[in-house]
Amino acid sequence: MKFKTCVSIAERTPNKVNQVLKIALKKSDYAEIRFDFLKIEQIPTTLNLIKKNLNKTVCTLRPKNEGGQFEGSEKERIRILKLIAEYNPFLLDVEFNTLQKNSELTKYLKTTKTKILVSWHDFKKTPNSTELKKKLTSMGKFSQNIKIVSTAKSTDDSTRMLELYSKKGKRNLIALSMGDNGRISRILCLYLGSPFTYVSLGKPVAPGQFSIDEVRKITNLKK
Amino acid sequence: MKFKTCVSIAERTPNKVNQVLKIALKKSDYAEIRFDFLKIEQIPTTLNLIKKNLNKTVCTLRPKNEGGQFEGSEKERIRILKLIAEYNPFLLDVEFNTLQKNSELTKYLKTTKTKILVSWHDFKKTPNSTELKKKLTSMGKFSQNIKIVSTAKSTDDSTRMLELYSKKGKRNLIALSMGDNGRISRILCLYLGSPFTYVSLGKPVAPGQFSIDEVRKITNLKK
Repeated sequence: MKFKTCVSIAERTPNKVNQVLKIALKKSDYAEIRFDFLKIEQIPTTLNLIKKNLNKTVCTLRPKNEGGQFEGSEKERIRILKLIAEYNPFLLDVEFNTLQKNSELTKYLKTTKTKILVSWHDFKKTPNSTELKKKLTSMGKFSQNIKIVSTAKSTDDSTRMLELYSKKGKRNLIALSMGDNGRISRILCLYLGSPFTYVSLGKPVAPGQFSIDEVRKITNLKK
Repeated sequence: MKFKTCVSIAERTPNKVNQVLKIALKKSDYAEIRFDFLKIEQIPTTLNLIKKNLNKTVCTLRPKNEGGQFEGSEKERIRILKLIAEYNPFLLDVEFNTLQKNSELTKYLKTTKTKILVSWHDFKKTPNSTELKKKLTSMGKFSQNIKIVSTAKSTDDSTRMLELYSKKGKRNLIALSMGDNGRISRILCLYLGSPFTYVSLGKPVAPGQFSIDEVRKITNLKK
């Protein structure tokens, strides 16, 4: 079985994004570009630069209240999400909270045929099982591609996130925990059916993230 | 597939050992008794007390230079190892260094028919791949049951230990790393063919050890 990886890229210029993306896709199945690390006016240039690799790219424009660095207004963010969708990337990551509040955006995105990765993050804790299952169901209304990320304070927190895979049905679920206690979930999620795991090229973009080389070694282990 | 566990027990009185062993074996396939945590004169009493559970018990009498707490002379330790062997426990853990130095002990142990778990520990680092493979081969001369434990300072250290499973052949290999960076190896070793993983009942006996409840939850995860 081939386990897939997605390199998180958080660079601050279009050229740097393009350069790192090329390196990332030599090693990794997919890459995620954190567009919120760029200045707003750099985003169109970047999209044009990386056009031919967008079919392997998860595009993310994270607002500050979800752990991101986007500097503009929410209105601007929605506008840019629509722009990115026009490029038909592999996946467009849109927060569950964003979709819930903007039915017009949801409708618009459908017309572009870009596949949505509906995402939800908890930067402080890991909710209980009931809450997590509810979240999975509600998020499933927006997309078959679901990303639920918590912060693990214990091994059990991390395991509780992984228990979600037994409830995923036919959905593509990425469920994992950030933090040192969550590291194990970033590997085990692959064995439980996650379409890919997020990795770094060098230093971690999210807490507890492994590098692509580390994950490659682990998933290539043989009996 | 059923993944097996071995609860490490490090108690200071025969009654406490007996009591904890009973609790451990209700939850776990095997238990390990660290006889070096007892006073020398308590060891025969303990063996008699736990006689009927010895067929599920790994017996260990670790000397100080291998991370143990045994207070007596090496001569006394050898004498007690022989005594334990007469009880035919599930496995008798004897250090590779001990067996190499005592061919008479090796011969004696053979006559008891007790199965040996030949063990080697590195409390400071993880040797390179070549050294590890050499170790595996040399240790295999003493027993088919081999335990190699290192200290991981990075994920790659831990992965290098796990790479040993591809070289184990028909031997029963337990290869894992201690420390925070080794935690993942304590789980992944099971998926790679380790006969069991060491766990704690409550607080860890070795650095990075998971509790039995944590491991049970992780290995019961379903897609």
